[in-house]
Amino acid sequence: MSVNPASPLVGVVMGSRSDWGTMQHAVQKLEALGIAHEVRVVSAHRTPDVLFDYAATAQQRGLRAIIAGAGGAAHLPGMLAAKTAVPVLGVPVQSRALNGLDSLLSIVQMPGGIPVATFAIGQAGAVNAALFAAAMLAADHPAIADALASFRQRQTDEVAGNDDPRR
Amino acid sequence: MSVNPASPLVGVVMGSRSDWGTMQHAVQKLEALGIAHEVRVVSAHRTPDVLFDYAATAQQRGLRAIIAGAGGAAHLPGMLAAKTAVPVLGVPVQSRALNGLDSLLSIVQMPGGIPVATFAIGQAGAVNAALFAAAMLAADHPAIADALASFRQRQTDEVAGNDDPRR
Amino acid sequence: MSVNPASPLVGVVMGSRSDWGTMQHAVQKLEALGIAHEVRVVSAHRTPDVLFDYAATAQQRGLRAIIAGAGGAAHLPGMLAAKTAVPVLGVPVQSRALNGLDSLLSIVQMPGGIPVATFAIGQAGAVNAALFAAAMLAADHPAIADALASFRQRQTDEVAGNDDPRR
Amino acid sequence: MSVNPASPLVGVVMGSRSDWGTMQHAVQKLEALGIAHEVRVVSAHRTPDVLFDYAATAQQRGLRAIIAGAGGAAHLPGMLAAKTAVPVLGVPVQSRALNGLDSLLSIVQMPGGIPVATFAIGQAGAVNAALFAAAMLAADHPAIADALASFRQRQTDEVAGNDDPRR
Amino acid sequence: MSVNPASPLVGVVMGSRSDWGTMQHAVQKLEALGIAHEVRVVSAHRTPDVLFDYAATAQQRGLRAIIAGAGGAAHLPGMLAAKTAVPVLGVPVQSRALNGLDSLLSIVQMPGGIPVATFAIGQAGAVNAALFAAAMLAADHPAIADALASFRQRQTDEVAGNDDPRR
Amino acid sequence: MSVNPASPLVGVVMGSRSDWGTMQHAVQKLEALGIAHEVRVVSAHRTPDVLFDYAATAQQRGLRAIIAGAGGAAHLPGMLAAKTAVPVLGVPVQSRALNGLDSLLSIVQMPGGIPVATFAIGQAGAVNAALFAAAMLAADHPAIADALASFRQRQTDEVAGNDDPRR
Amino acid sequence: MSVNPASPLVGVVMGSRSDWGTMQHAVQKLEALGIAHEVRVVSAHRTPDVLFDYAATAQQRGLRAIIAGAGGAAHLPGMLAAKTAVPVLGVPVQSRALNGLDSLLSIVQMPGGIPVATFAIGQAGAVNAALFAAAMLAADHPAIADALASFRQRQTDEVAGNDDPRR
Amino acid sequence: MSVNPASPLVGVVMGSRSDWGTMQHAVQKLEALGIAHEVRVVSAHRTPDVLFDYAATAQQRGLRAIIAGAGGAAHLPGMLAAKTAVPVLGVPVQSRALNGLDSLLSIVQMPGGIPVATFAIGQAGAVNAALFAAAMLAADHPAIADALASFRQRQTDEVAGNDDPRR
Repeated sequence: MSVNPASPLVGVVMGSRSDWGTMQHAVQKLEALGIAHEVRVVSAHRTPDVLFDYAATAQQRGLRAIIAGAGGAAHLPGMLAAKTAVPVLGVPVQSRALNGLDSLLSIVQMPGGIPVATFAIGQAGAVNAALFAAAMLAADHPAIADALASFRQRQTDEVAGNDDPRR
Repeated sequence: MSVNPASPLVGVVMGSRSDWGTMQHAVQKLEALGIAHEVRVVSAHRTPDVLFDYAATAQQRGLRAIIAGAGGAAHLPGMLAAKTAVPVLGVPVQSRALNGLDSLLSIVQMPGGIPVATFAIGQAGAVNAALFAAAMLAADHPAIADALASFRQRQTDEVAGNDDPRR
Repeated sequence: MSVNPASPLVGVVMGSRSDWGTMQHAVQKLEALGIAHEVRVVSAHRTPDVLFDYAATAQQRGLRAIIAGAGGAAHLPGMLAAKTAVPVLGVPVQSRALNGLDSLLSIVQMPGGIPVATFAIGQAGAVNAALFAAAMLAADHPAIADALASFRQRQTDEVAGNDDPRR
Repeated sequence: MSVNPASPLVGVVMGSRSDWGTMQHAVQKLEALGIAHEVRVVSAHRTPDVLFDYAATAQQRGLRAIIAGAGGAAHLPGMLAAKTAVPVLGVPVQSRALNGLDSLLSIVQMPGGIPVATFAIGQAGAVNAALFAAAMLAADHPAIADALASFRQRQTDEVAGNDDPRR
Repeated sequence: MSVNPASPLVGVVMGSRSDWGTMQHAVQKLEALGIAHEVRVVSAHRTPDVLFDYAATAQQRGLRAIIAGAGGAAHLPGMLAAKTAVPVLGVPVQSRALNGLDSLLSIVQMPGGIPVATFAIGQAGAVNAALFAAAMLAADHPAIADALASFRQRQTDEVAGNDDPRR
Repeated sequence: MSVNPASPLVGVVMGSRSDWGTMQHAVQKLEALGIAHEVRVVSAHRTPDVLFDYAATAQQRGLRAIIAGAGGAAHLPGMLAAKTAVPVLGVPVQSRALNGLDSLLSIVQMPGGIPVATFAIGQAGAVNAALFAAAMLAADHPAIADALASFRQRQTDEVAGNDDPRR
Repeated sequence: MSVNPASPLVGVVMGSRSDWGTMQHAVQKLEALGIAHEVRVVSAHRTPDVLFDYAATAQQRGLRAIIAGAGGAAHLPGMLAAKTAVPVLGVPVQSRALNGLDSLLSIVQMPGGIPVATFAIGQAGAVNAALFAAAMLAADHPAIADALASFRQRQTDEVAGNDDPRR
Repeated sequence: MSVNPASPLVGVVMGSRSDWGTMQHAVQKLEALGIAHEVRVVSAHRTPDVLFDYAATAQQRGLRAIIAGAGGAAHLPGMLAAKTAVPVLGVPVQSRALNGLDSLLSIVQMPGGIPVATFAIGQAGAVNAALFAAAMLAADHPAIADALASFRQRQTDEVAGNDDPRR
């Protein structure tokens, strides 16, 4: 597969501008790993046609993964997955009343046939979705593989070299 | 508003044939109340384009309500609501692992802007969605208003006239 | 059906004055859509007779929908529904200890026979109950249909025209 | 206070005939303790007027406690309590989808001002509501006090005298 | 039964001084209703012998009810009930991690044989336990019956006379 | 520390004979590891005095651990721990309505000051409580240390030597 | 990247032979899509060294994804992910007591830094993990891309062509 | 068994420096009881090899117990237990989204064969893990037995001597 290196490999979408506080952690990690990406607010409920267009054109635009964050009845990741063969990574955004348990179940409990790879509620999930996208891309992109390996070595070293919590 | 009396006023849709065991209770109640309806399996995830077409044409085809049943990450009611101004009534179908709590939260926790009227998990919810559709239609359809009033009087009489649980 | 245009079409009731912080969002949306309404505190537990009177006279007073918000053991929506054929829309108010999960289950898990259309916990649910009432009324009130269509188009345009979360 | 000994001291009510499987355990215990009682099916949602009449006349008819069992959005105990000063004991009946957690929260999470004494989900709760009614009546009814003391001694002796689970 | 009117009719106990913020609402309501009471910190886990003594002597000291508040693995109400025939009213105190769901289940899910009458989590439950104690005592104490009837009338009047939430 | 080898090192107690189906798995494991033990039904609620005696004499009778299984409002492990310095291992027995979540929270959420070591709900927890008791005893009892090491090696070998699930 | 086509691209591992009832659905889907794979029982707790070896050698053996199913305190997927850069797909197996909610949370709530892509509880999750692996591989393996596209078209056609649930 | 009295008997480990706010309460209690201990940050996911080394050498270094605190998908206690015969005491650290319910289930729901003794979520659990370690060590270390007995007597006296919550 050949793509213009300048074109985004990963799309980061979220259901609402209020999800940016969570999803920016995915974007920061993609930037740190040197992965070309794009960022969009796409609402499953308020802009369903945009969602369908976004998903339907994702593959031809060269996207290799879509990271989708949403809260409450979080339909965005699942509906993207219904309209594209590009792997969709879902991030449950912490909701106000139910702490994100509703978001998590709405994303992860997809029926057999249309998968969404789901990550932890909130910031940890956003970071991990980016790292997972990097791991997917690593096989074909040595630079990403190297960046990911460096990151993981660094986080291991940081814990190992600083393991007295009282300091 | 004038519609052909033979054309359906209520659409009953479900995400999978396996939801029929639950959703047939909605259909039976619509029939008992003399409400013209149609029944379809429409999957948010496996047939998203059919879902969009169904919702987009619902109003012009004369539907006054859509009853949508789904389980797990139950996206069907919310996505229908995203594509039509016709009121959508959601029925959480009991799921295997989480007993329908996932279905309930996925349907009811819609973000502000696109409502889905949600009913109880399982058979009670299916029955009540049909009764609620009848109540909505009653203002413009005296026959439905009468049928609904008769049903409610009858169920009150049945309890009141047979209130010794040991018999 | 013919009603005095000045008389309220929608009743907004809540179990306690402390629910107003949530339920005002339903009222604001009704106002924005030009829907005549009334607002009352009616407690299922502290003023049960008022509740019964309110429900029993709702239809003859011309109400086409009742939006009822309550928290904890939220009996208000279900008891209204038990006493009137007017459609009741329930809004679970977020409770202190259990975050509104108790309110949600108390409202949505109605037995077959008496439906309450339930919406999301808190502000989103209050907004959506008002929008759903508008959708119900739209068939008979072209002005409400237009106001609702305009609102939905506007919220779609707002997301679509401002979809970069970093700006 | 003086009551006709033949008249019931405890009312046992339930929201549906299907609750009898659970509530019969309360009745059996009342019988075993020699407590005069009556049994009725009264539905908060299907027969709200009967519920109001039952509660409003409970005190003058000599009832000293009402045991009320209900499932799902279990409004029966709370609405009885709203209409009478007679103590109401609530028994959550196990529901199909949510295992009685909905019933429990709907009964126990009453707002400050109107109490319902709540017991365990299902058979244990039915038995214990009857025992609690007996404890309440014991102060004024020595025969009930004696029967309750005998029962408690007997259950203690049974455990203590047969404490090898392998036999 | 004859008790010294100066001696307490209701014991209010709690598992820890930190429960006082919740349990003071029970005490305030008992005071408002003119019910003689006593207040103690008794820990099921740190002072089990005191607990046993307290429960074992409750009846002879003239207590007609014990209100027990506790959080987390809230064993206090159940163990009191195991050691006395005096009715025990349990109040789940809101815990830090699980919001009082643990306290509620630990109190309410008593096995058949030893009942604890359980009320709502937190302040509402504390208030209602006091009101329920008053209702229990009302049959034998006309002054308490009057005080309770006045309180209930007053709270009904307050809602009914001030039912516009916007004022 | 010197104990008569014939005297039990571990006490296995349970709140009801119906817990034996779960707790027998602890006993079988103790037998397999050659650990002297005793088995008793002791109910926190029905035989509280027996519970207190059992706990108060546990240390002087040479018990080094008490394994306590209980369901629902499972007070047995915590009350044993309140009355003895012998380590108490709690096993939540699966309850009917809430699947053992109530049992788990009632046992594990002990307040700071009195610990109960808690294990998984049901059979796995019973087995593991026995294995944990063995690990505690291993430091002073070489035969138990050997038996435990053999068991663990054997279970490792069984998985490793038979790792094709299709055979 | 170049791998021997006969060598497995996907490893399917599970924590116990009892997980095979669930995980066989992943294997069947991989077979249907023509994806070379291997199947192993590897227990995080009983064979931790085998787990580490399996993960540490996964990349050099040419694995492009590991599908890991586990129940209860399901540590297998997360510990594999801690030891390899190969993407790990986690499948929560339905547990007896808590219906798989424990399995789900143990797998999905990974801390930021080490991702596990999580799928639905039980059979649907197993199927979807296999489909997700196919989607990941599709970019580099046209035959898999074709097989996946055919499968998705077929499942869409099946719903669309057979959408009357009453037949 | 003979160990250098200066060498630690208890290891306190935690998955992240952010767990120190909780786990310091275990350390403070060990210090108060005069129990030699060591403190380390060891991450199951970021430093799995360190975890394995720590566990594999724990016994030979003379550790008699390991207290392990972790949050979210808390794999640290279970993986330590998989690699050592030293008893592992798990402390669920309160997580941000799910309040520690995820941490609790991930730690306590271990499969039969590898036990982790689990304590309450947060500070109470940390304190109690230290107290439980003391109780385990008491049989062989009279000074610890004395310190533990003094602590327990003191906490009993503090409650008993100061049992009016209003002062």
